Amino acid sequence: MRAVVYQKPFEVAVEEVADPKIQAPTDALVRITTTCICGSDLHMYEGRTDAEPGIVFGHENMGIIEEVGSGVSTRRKGERVVLPFNVACGFCTNCRSGKSAFCLTVNPPGAGGAYGYVGMGPYMGGQAEYLRVPYADYNCVPLPEGSDHEEDFALLADIFPTGYHATELAGVRPGDTVAVYGAGPVGLMAAYSALLKGASRVFSVDKVPGRLKLAEKIGAEPVDFTAGSPPEQIQDKLGTDGTDRGIDAVGYQATAAAGEEQPALILDQLVDTVRSTGSIGVVGLYLPSDPGAPNKHAAKGELLFRVGRFFEKGQKMGTGQADAKQYAHQLRDLIITGRATPSFVVSQNLSLDEAPDAYRRFDNREDGYSKVLLHP
Amino acid sequence: MRAVVYQKPFEVAVEEVADPKIQAPTDALVRITTTCICGSDLHMYEGRTDAEPGIVFGHENMGIIEEVGSGVSTRRKGERVVLPFNVACGFCTNCRSGKSAFCLTVNPPGAGGAYGYVGMGPYMGGQAEYLRVPYADYNCVPLPEGSDHEEDFALLADIFPTGYHATELAGVRPGDTVAVYGAGPVGLMAAYSALLKGASRVFSVDKVPGRLKLAEKIGAEPVDFTAGSPPEQIQDKLGTDGTDRGIDAVGYQATAAAGEEQPALILDQLVDTVRSTGSIGVVGLYLPSDPGAPNKHAAKGELLFRVGRFFEKGQKMGTGQADAKQYAHQLRDLIITGRATPSFVVSQNLSLDEAPDAYRRFDNREDGYSKVLLHP
Amino acid sequence: MRAVVYQKPFEVAVEEVADPKIQAPTDALVRITTTCICGSDLHMYEGRTDAEPGIVFGHENMGIIEEVGSGVSTRRKGERVVLPFNVACGFCTNCRSGKSAFCLTVNPPGAGGAYGYVGMGPYMGGQAEYLRVPYADYNCVPLPEGSDHEEDFALLADIFPTGYHATELAGVRPGDTVAVYGAGPVGLMAAYSALLKGASRVFSVDKVPGRLKLAEKIGAEPVDFTAGSPPEQIQDKLGTDGTDRGIDAVGYQATAAAGEEQPALILDQLVDTVRSTGSIGVVGLYLPSDPGAPNKHAAKGELLFRVGRFFEKGQKMGTGQADAKQYAHQLRDLIITGRATPSFVVSQNLSLDEAPDAYRRFDNREDGYSKVLLHP
Amino acid sequence: MRAVVYQKPFEVAVEEVADPKIQAPTDALVRITTTCICGSDLHMYEGRTDAEPGIVFGHENMGIIEEVGSGVSTRRKGERVVLPFNVACGFCTNCRSGKSAFCLTVNPPGAGGAYGYVGMGPYMGGQAEYLRVPYADYNCVPLPEGSDHEEDFALLADIFPTGYHATELAGVRPGDTVAVYGAGPVGLMAAYSALLKGASRVFSVDKVPGRLKLAEKIGAEPVDFTAGSPPEQIQDKLGTDGTDRGIDAVGYQATAAAGEEQPALILDQLVDTVRSTGSIGVVGLYLPSDPGAPNKHAAKGELLFRVGRFFEKGQKMGTGQADAKQYAHQLRDLIITGRATPSFVVSQNLSLDEAPDAYRRFDNREDGYSKVLLHP
Repeated sequence: MRAVVYQKPFEVAVEEVADPKIQAPTDALVRITTTCICGSDLHMYEGRTDAEPGIVFGHENMGIIEEVGSGVSTRRKGERVVLPFNVACGFCTNCRSGKSAFCLTVNPPGAGGAYGYVGMGPYMGGQAEYLRVPYADYNCVPLPEGSDHEEDFALLADIFPTGYHATELAGVRPGDTVAVYGAGPVGLMAAYSALLKGASRVFSVDKVPGRLKLAEKIGAEPVDFTAGSPPEQIQDKLGTDGTDRGIDAVGYQATAAAGEEQPALILDQLVDTVRSTGSIGVVGLYLPSDPGAPNKHAAKGELLFRVGRFFEKGQKMGTGQADAKQYAHQLRDLIITGRATPSFVVSQNLSLDEAPDAYRRFDNREDGYSKVLLHP
Repeated sequence: MRAVVYQKPFEVAVEEVADPKIQAPTDALVRITTTCICGSDLHMYEGRTDAEPGIVFGHENMGIIEEVGSGVSTRRKGERVVLPFNVACGFCTNCRSGKSAFCLTVNPPGAGGAYGYVGMGPYMGGQAEYLRVPYADYNCVPLPEGSDHEEDFALLADIFPTGYHATELAGVRPGDTVAVYGAGPVGLMAAYSALLKGASRVFSVDKVPGRLKLAEKIGAEPVDFTAGSPPEQIQDKLGTDGTDRGIDAVGYQATAAAGEEQPALILDQLVDTVRSTGSIGVVGLYLPSDPGAPNKHAAKGELLFRVGRFFEKGQKMGTGQADAKQYAHQLRDLIITGRATPSFVVSQNLSLDEAPDAYRRFDNREDGYSKVLLHP
Repeated sequence: MRAVVYQKPFEVAVEEVADPKIQAPTDALVRITTTCICGSDLHMYEGRTDAEPGIVFGHENMGIIEEVGSGVSTRRKGERVVLPFNVACGFCTNCRSGKSAFCLTVNPPGAGGAYGYVGMGPYMGGQAEYLRVPYADYNCVPLPEGSDHEEDFALLADIFPTGYHATELAGVRPGDTVAVYGAGPVGLMAAYSALLKGASRVFSVDKVPGRLKLAEKIGAEPVDFTAGSPPEQIQDKLGTDGTDRGIDAVGYQATAAAGEEQPALILDQLVDTVRSTGSIGVVGLYLPSDPGAPNKHAAKGELLFRVGRFFEKGQKMGTGQADAKQYAHQLRDLIITGRATPSFVVSQNLSLDEAPDAYRRFDNREDGYSKVLLHP
Repeated sequence: MRAVVYQKPFEVAVEEVADPKIQAPTDALVRITTTCICGSDLHMYEGRTDAEPGIVFGHENMGIIEEVGSGVSTRRKGERVVLPFNVACGFCTNCRSGKSAFCLTVNPPGAGGAYGYVGMGPYMGGQAEYLRVPYADYNCVPLPEGSDHEEDFALLADIFPTGYHATELAGVRPGDTVAVYGAGPVGLMAAYSALLKGASRVFSVDKVPGRLKLAEKIGAEPVDFTAGSPPEQIQDKLGTDGTDRGIDAVGYQATAAAGEEQPALILDQLVDTVRSTGSIGVVGLYLPSDPGAPNKHAAKGELLFRVGRFFEKGQKMGTGQADAKQYAHQLRDLIITGRATPSFVVSQNLSLDEAPDAYRRFDNREDGYSKVLLHP
């Protein structure tokens, strides 16, 4: 079959690779209809990870079941499904409590697996014609037949649940005021999820005009961080001493208005932005090892963080990759009834052959390349 | 009346001061029967705060109501009550959600007030014969008549609820394994609370033999941090990759085995000790300003913290002073029925006149001076 | 001052009554700007309660603070406030856990007080020029100055929080399917609240065309119970075996399609409508004593209820009057930002003098008399 | 193999039956070391169900894995395991939210399966030498090697988690007062679980002296319902108007002090026993169809229940079979560390051959036959 294969830093190619096969009785094979390029694919693309040439990318996948193993009970050939990016077993301690991003079975001795990602287990990616799906009863989220909402459903594999997860980590409730740092695809999904949950005001912090415009379009209030301190801008708008909740959809590669990298910038700004007793959800990435970090502490994931103020304000913080499976069903139902339309972030629908070019443009942050969908 | 009055660093005296009076219709006056010296009083005693000479110490108070204002509805003269250390209104946003340690009414523009503590509002302390209690309907926790359980009830003002709060911040549930860093009075109360809640195993980390012995006596497993890395010791005992929950009852003045101060040591060790998706409760103190800190960042409460690993493990952290009022009633009921006896930590029962000497010995960490109760 | 005074069954009059006064230091006096007639006022109006002539009606009140007692800390003359219908202290066990509808202080030995309602304590109603508000710091919910959103804010006193409370009792979460029995003002507020919280589908069951039309207008799906069994109609629409959540906004005066009273009809239909492990919230009224009941058991509030099926399905049920105070602040914020506009249910804005006529028409269920607001 | 086989009402026999085999790749075969007789087996034994002759009883099973299918990932031959009585898939909507007693996969179109029980799917019971376990990765709870705690672990299959489930349904928290109706094995486990969770007082209501004595031994307060109204007895002891939580471990076969059956007796008494805003957990069985009921309504599971008072008090009620899997791991850990010893309820350890006699005696409620364990 044909697949997007990593060649070397800044180069992927569409190549023939061996077809995936059912390996265990609990596997399914899925013919991919839509697969997305994710911002986190760029970490590998740019050569800033241990990813070896030959890896097939793609952890945001959906399609049609082509075959199921003899131990699969509830899924059938021909069903349309979306695959949350976390490969997970469904029965370990973490999966049983909904924390499928930290599955203890699929990638030992670590916690958590994924399709097409370095360090996340031996699972081929889905930027390809076919995908092997382990524990298919658990990992396939069934969808209505046909092709309706294809773009929306594709986002159930990762960014919509990840944005929603941020609001869960932050404990967003109806009536809350929420500050979301970052208005890239995940940040926009977080803002969108907060509004779906009944937040009274949502602030989206970014500097890219197109992103801020999109935030405004869905009902959030844009805050341009190049125009002044975001916590101060937000508190001025609020007229109170802080938002109820805060979300980090940026991570360690945060840059200050002047452009220099400041790994703990967003966390520190969130402590300032959120009121005492408020809570913070972090889905932006932080790493325990970052060779390209600005200093030796940051290289080990040790960041200067305003712990004193965080404690004094009695805040809470929840972190970690999204358990996409945990949210995918309920978010799917909101899409089916038309109450959620996350595809507003989609910028391109391309063929698999266009992937190399799309990676290049997306990595260059070309205008208008926010969320690319591939259709093999 | 007579009261313990701060004179200068390392000196308090028992002096005559003006009797407190009912100032607002919602006040009560309480005749103190028991008041405790708290480890946090030593911060002021040692001159490491902005506390001015003349301040009356004491935020862990209980006694008999002597008088109530005309706006007090449910409390009466003659009732025995304990006063949670947080002065709070009961009706602001934070109090209404149980966060009385962050009351927005009693100490504006800050969040949170307390008796006898610098920066916590104009409330005289209770190491004295009498105490004025604002918002008496809210702030007085009624007790059974008589003198039974006097030592246990006195601990409801602060350390028992503070230890319990740590287990709430950490989300301790029946069957959980829990690591508690620090086996001083608060750490012991946290370990004790975790066991009361049905934890399956509790580890108490400290180096003082007397504390570790006390931890063992209540059913916790002592871990001497001078004998090796606490996370490794605990994981060896567990045979798994970490505890479900972790508690910091030490704070920023943590010292490594070798004796040097390392402000983020406990937080970093907790990230290592707790398993992925586990949660951490922090009641040990961290400050946004610490002139005596080992470096300029720590002086601003900015600590090098292992954010990368914390995120990778998908952990949660809850922080902040205890909302003692929120827990005092249920913990009182456990004392009344004999199911909780927190007084096992009490080391001395003294008169008010003995306070200056007790402060000196307690501050010198004299053997056997763990929790001192004064009876004016 | 002038007030709406109960005369005898089916008759109220606007009369001069003694002005209310500050009675306790914690009281406030409020000049009423808007007060609503509630469906529950009709129980008294129709003479089906123990209400004595002379009682002033009105438990849904808002206005401007005219005076505060010497023990009031945070409210000031001139502030615009809405008064949740529950008179409550803020500091008893129930109030501290948010259950202000069951305040143990204001109406002993019972649990819960209200303005202008028989059996709910000695509190005059607000269908009048002025209202005395006990425990003013707790019971007044501050509003923005001016007259914006007056109709919306008035509904914060009762029906908006009551509808929201139903969704809390039922545990409605984003993506849920919800069946709401009853599309009167409270049922509509419940459906509206479920949608605000991100429900994926909401079914509104009633038979009155105007109500069903209003339900449809806000995004709910109307179900006419005269057209067939509501559980079957809903399951047909769903294509599954039941909704996630169910809400009873009807109560014991339920009538079957044929018109006869069947006190447990709604509860039984909810057990059928909701899926196994689902949950049910009940805000429709059930009484422990009902002299006009269809049989002697119902007269004691004992109803034939499908307990066997309820248990077999492993369902949960939460009941009781709304703790309006608990929700009023967050719902107010949704009104201020324009994200909630509950005033879509308001049908009339009248002067106090028009109250007797309005009561008559409302009690006759005259077309178009759904929610009447009075402006003294 | 040999197994306990139902013959006809009031008769079981130990017979040779066909050995169970691996039927699906996700199955395991377990050699039974301990299996318990449950009170609910007596419903079938007495012929009051649709159970046909030939059925093998036994839903409380533990043993050693003899064989695993090719689709089993984490369980291995030779492991000691306990099998929660609910056969469940682990991946359906209900299992994913922990509600494994309502699995939608194993017994369609119903919700929930079990071993050896009529109407609960085609799963042979474990009062036999071997047992087939579907979805073995999910349904096997691993235990430490060896034979320690064998009696305690056996109770993890049903009654310990069921008792614990009752406290979860009732929302028992540290410091709570709890009334448990019924002091049979499940009621005792509920009382025991409430105490493990830190309840301040637990009342056990029954009339059998041996049961009340056992309740007292574990720290509960016995209430003999033949000595007066239980709600009044409990309120007298409490000195307040009710317990925080209530538990029904009796069900529809409740008998009044005088001996006649009153199906809703316990529910009504719980409404009286529990304070306003309190909550009730129901694990005692209620059925939608009961041919032997005292009247035609009860025969359809429709019971006269005090709905009016339940609503007036604003109580909550949770019901349903226990999701034993959800609790088995944490309760196991409490057994391993010696913090829980539920085997105090075990009365006999017998061989399989002794089963027919044991059934007879247990069904006759012979003195001392409270919980019988069989060792094939």
